Amino acid sequence: MSRSVAGPEIERLIQLLAKLPGLGPRSARRAALHLINKKDELLVPLAKAMDLAGEKIVICSTCGNVDTSDPCLICTDPRRDGTTIVVVEEVADLWALERATAINARYHVLGGVLSPLDGIGPDDIGIAGLVRRVAEGGISEVIIAVNATVEGQTTAHYITDQIGGGEVRISRLAHGVPVGGELDYLDEGTLAAAIRSRTPF
Amino acid sequence: MSRSVAGPEIERLIQLLAKLPGLGPRSARRAALHLINKKDELLVPLAKAMDLAGEKIVICSTCGNVDTSDPCLICTDPRRDGTTIVVVEEVADLWALERATAINARYHVLGGVLSPLDGIGPDDIGIAGLVRRVAEGGISEVIIAVNATVEGQTTAHYITDQIGGGEVRISRLAHGVPVGGELDYLDEGTLAAAIRSRTPF
Ligand SMILES: [Zn+2]
Ligand SMILES: [Zn+2]
Repeated sequence: MSRSVAGPEIERLIQLLAKLPGLGPRSARRAALHLINKKDELLVPLAKAMDLAGEKIVICSTCGNVDTSDPCLICTDPRRDGTTIVVVEEVADLWALERATAINARYHVLGGVLSPLDGIGPDDIGIAGLVRRVAEGGISEVIIAVNATVEGQTTAHYITDQIGGGEVRISRLAHGVPVGGELDYLDEGTLAAAIRSRTPF
Repeated sequence: MSRSVAGPEIERLIQLLAKLPGLGPRSARRAALHLINKKDELLVPLAKAMDLAGEKIVICSTCGNVDTSDPCLICTDPRRDGTTIVVVEEVADLWALERATAINARYHVLGGVLSPLDGIGPDDIGIAGLVRRVAEGGISEVIIAVNATVEGQTTAHYITDQIGGGEVRISRLAHGVPVGGELDYLDEGTLAAAIRSRTPF
C-alpha cells in the first residue's frame, strides 16, 4: 500500500500502539492522533506513567502478581487470610476477583494454562511455585479459579494431582461461571457468587 | 466498587490508557498488563516513541497536518500539485486519502466541522486559513473532502460561500462515499473512485 503517510516518528508510534490488545492498525492511528492533539494532557503524562511503571513495577516472586514491591502488598497484608490461596491464570483475573471483593485471601498467578497443542507444559506456568507454597505448610485451602475452558479445567486437574491427597482442601469455583467464559469478562456479582458456592474438587 | 486493586503507578497507567479512543476501562487494564508483561519489547519502546513524538511533532501552520517540520513535508514537496487543495476535517482523513494514493496534491485540515448545536462556528475551525491560502493566489481547485454528514455538508456550503465566485474551481467528492459515512472507515478503492469522479460544487 501506498507511500508513507506520516513521518517515521509517527509511524513508529502507530506501529507500537497497534501492539496493544484491543487496538488494531486503524484504531492505533486514531490513538496516535489523539495523543498528538492532547500532548500536554495525555501524551506527556502517559509517557511519564509508562516510564514510572517500567522503573518500579516488579513481579511478585511469591505469587506472580504485579506490584511495586516484592513480595507484593497482597502477600504481605496481615489482614488477609494467609491459609487460603486462590489460583488464577493471569493477573487480570486476580484484579477481577479483587474488584468483586470476592475473597480476602492470597493468590497464585499461573501466568497461563496447560496447553499441549501450544507446547505449554507444567514447567512453563507457575505450578512448581504453587506446589512449593503448599509444601511449606500453613495452607488449609487452595481455590482453583481458572477459566472454564478445556485448558483451564485440564490445568485444574493437573494441579489437584500435584497438591491433593494431603490435609489441604482443594476447591474450584461454583458453576455460575458460564462454560467457555473468561473471568475477566464477568460482572462482580457473578464472580462473588461463584466464590461463595465453590465446590470441593 | 471495592478496594484498590493495583498500586498507584499501575492505576495511573490504566487511567491514562483508558483515555485513548478505542480503549475502555477493561481494555485499558488489559493493555496495562500487556505493557508490564512486555516491558522491554513494548513498554519501554512505546514510552520512548511517545517522548520523541511529544518533542518533535508539530502542527503545520500552513495546512494543519501533523509532522516533524513546519511547514510539513506535504506542503513543501515540489512533486505535488500545489494548485489543488484538498480540504479535510481531520488529519486521520488526510492519512486515509494518502493511503489510498487518491491524489497527489496539498491539503487543508479544518480540525472539525461547523456544528451550531455544539457551539462550533467558523472561527473554531481552520476556515480563515483556507480563505487566506486561496486569496494568496496560485490555487486553481479546492476539493472539499469532508464527511458526508449533515455538519460536513453544512461546512462545505459555508466554505463554498467564502471562497467561491472567483477563478477557483470548487468540487466535492463524488457520490460513492456512503451517506452518513466517515472517510477514515472507507476502503482505499472507494476513496480513490470518489476522488476521481468528484463533481463541481
Ligand atoms: Zn505476591
Ligand atoms: Zn502542511
